Amino acid sequence: MSGEFVSICEVGPRDGLQIAKTRMTTDDKVAWIASLAAAGLKEIEVGSFVPPRVIPQLADTAEVVARVLETIPGLTVQALAPNLRGVQNAYNAGVHKISIPVSVSEGHSKANLNRTPAQSIAMMQEIMDWLKAQPRKVPVVAGASTAFGCSIDGVVTTAQTVALCEGLATAGVDQIMLADTVGYAHPAQIKEVVLATREAIGPVLYGLHLHDTLGMGIANAVAGLEVGIRAFDSCLAGLGGCPYAPGASGNVVTEDLVFMLESMGFRTGIEIPKLLDARKVLQASLPAEPLHGQVPRAGLPPTFRKAA
Amino acid sequence: MSGEFVSICEVGPRDGLQIAKTRMTTDDKVAWIASLAAAGLKEIEVGSFVPPRVIPQLADTAEVVARVLETIPGLTVQALAPNLRGVQNAYNAGVHKISIPVSVSEGHSKANLNRTPAQSIAMMQEIMDWLKAQPRKVPVVAGASTAFGCSIDGVVTTAQTVALCEGLATAGVDQIMLADTVGYAHPAQIKEVVLATREAIGPVLYGLHLHDTLGMGIANAVAGLEVGIRAFDSCLAGLGGCPYAPGASGNVVTEDLVFMLESMGFRTGIEIPKLLDARKVLQASLPAEPLHGQVPRAGLPPTFRKAA
Repeated sequence: MSGEFVSICEVGPRDGLQIAKTRMTTDDKVAWIASLAAAGLKEIEVGSFVPPRVIPQLADTAEVVARVLETIPGLTVQALAPNLRGVQNAYNAGVHKISIPVSVSEGHSKANLNRTPAQSIAMMQEIMDWLKAQPRKVPVVAGASTAFGCSIDGVVTTAQTVALCEGLATAGVDQIMLADTVGYAHPAQIKEVVLATREAIGPVLYGLHLHDTLGMGIANAVAGLEVGIRAFDSCLAGLGGCPYAPGASGNVVTEDLVFMLESMGFRTGIEIPKLLDARKVLQASLPAEPLHGQVPRAGLPPTFRKAA
Repeated sequence: MSGEFVSICEVGPRDGLQIAKTRMTTDDKVAWIASLAAAGLKEIEVGSFVPPRVIPQLADTAEVVARVLETIPGLTVQALAPNLRGVQNAYNAGVHKISIPVSVSEGHSKANLNRTPAQSIAMMQEIMDWLKAQPRKVPVVAGASTAFGCSIDGVVTTAQTVALCEGLATAGVDQIMLADTVGYAHPAQIKEVVLATREAIGPVLYGLHLHDTLGMGIANAVAGLEVGIRAFDSCLAGLGGCPYAPGASGNVVTEDLVFMLESMGFRTGIEIPKLLDARKVLQASLPAEPLHGQVPRAGLPPTFRKAA
C-alpha cells in the first residue's frame, strides 16, 4: 500500500455543524475551513443548501461558499443539496461539487427526505438532466445513506443497497459514497457490500462515509481499504450524526483516520499537527461542543512506525 | 467465519484495576468477577501476584483467587506473576493459568520489570523448569509487551518481537500473547508481526492483547482475525493502561470487541446485555472511574445484522 493516495473529504462544516448545539458564525466557519485547508484537506463540504428553517445552523451556506471560493485557492468546495432547488442554488453559488443524499431504507428516506427511495431515483434523474443542460460541469456525488443498516428499519440487505446504487448510476451521478449513517456496519459487511456494489456499477462507487456509533468506524475504514476503497468522508473531532437517524453518533474522526492511514503507509497529503490546530479553531468557536478522537487525546507518538 | 469460536480473556480485574484511582474491595472484586462470568466470560485474569507495595490495588489477589475458585465453577482463573516468586504464589493459590509479562523493548523491560529482555528469557526458563517439577500442570501464557512499539524506545521491529518470542517458545511457555501495550500498532503491522511470529514459533502464538490509545484497537483486532488469531485479551469498559508505559491508555473494550465479533458471525459465548450488567456492578463499586465503550454508550441496535 506504500505511497498510495487516499482522498479525504472533510464534512465537519456540514455534517458536523448541522446538529451542533450552538451555531457557528460565518466568520468562524470561514476561519475553520481555512484552517482545515491549511492542514492539507483538498475537499471540504462547507454547508448545505436546505431551507434555513430546516437547518438554521447552515443558513449562511451561500455566503460561506462565496467567501471560501474567494479566499482559499485550490480547495474543492463541496456542498450538500437535498433536491433540485438546492442543486440549483448550489450551482449558482459556484460550488465545485454537489453531494446529494438519498436513503437505501424506506424508513430513513421518509424521515430524512420525505420521499421513497424510488422517488429519490426519479428526482436524481431530473437533477442530472438539469445539470447537464448548464454551461458549467459540476459533478454530483450521491450519498447512499443507511447502506449498511437503519435505526428505523433495522436490517438493510446488500441487494437493497446495490439496487439503489444501480438506480443512481443509471441516473448518471458521477460518484456514489456508501454511507453507514447510523454506524451499524461491521468490517465483513463493508467488504461484502463494496464488492457487490462495485460489481454492479463499477468505478461510480467512489468511497465510504462512516460513523463510529458502535466503535467500528476505523475498522470499517480498514475493511474498505482492503477492498480497494481510496476515498472517505470524515469529520474533525468526530462531530456529527443525523437528526433523522435516532441513535446515530459522530462521524469517523478525521485526526484518527488520517493517523491510521499514514501509519499504514498511505499518503493523504494531510498534516496531523495542523489538524490539531484546526481543532483548536473549532474548539474556540464552539467551546461547549464535545470533541472526540483518540489521537488528539493521546497526542502523536514521538515516533511511529509506518508500514513498508 | 460463520460460527467460529473466538476466545476472550477478560483482564479488567488485573490490568484494569492496577491503575484505577480508587481501590476495589475484595467483596466487590468477587462480585464483579461473578458478573463477568455470568455474562459468559470463561477466562478471567483476576489479579497479580506482585508485592503489595508495588500494586496495592491487587494486594488481595490470593484471597480473590481462593474465593472465585470456590464460588464460580467452570471459570478458568488466571493471574499474572512477574517472576518465579510470583509464579510460586500463584501456583500455591491454585490458579488455573499464569500470565507472565516480558517486554520486547529494552526501555519498557527495564522500566516495568527491572530486567533486560534477555534476562526475562533466562527467568522464564527457570520458571518453566520449576513448574514442570510440580505435581499440577499449570499452563503459562507469556505476554510479549511492547511487541508493536514502545513509548520509551519508539519503534520496535518485527525482528525484535520474533526473536523474543522464539526465546519464550524455547523456554517452553505454553502460549504467547502479542501485546500492543501502548497502542501504537496499526492493522498492517499486526498482520506482518503475527505472520512472522507464527512462522517462527507456530501455534505457541496464541492471541493479541490490544490497547486503544490511538483509536485502532478494534481495527487491529479485525486485522488479527484476518490472519487467524482467535484469542484476545480485553477489558470491560476499556479500563487499564500501564503504569510504566507513558501515554498508554485503556485496553480494547470487551463490550465493543464482543459486539464486533458477534456482528461478524463469530461466536464468543458472551451475552452483551449481561456484559452491560457487569458494567453496572463495576460502576457501582468504582463510581469515580471513567468507563469507556461505544456499544454501552449507543446501546445495542434493535436489530443488528450478523455476517453470513
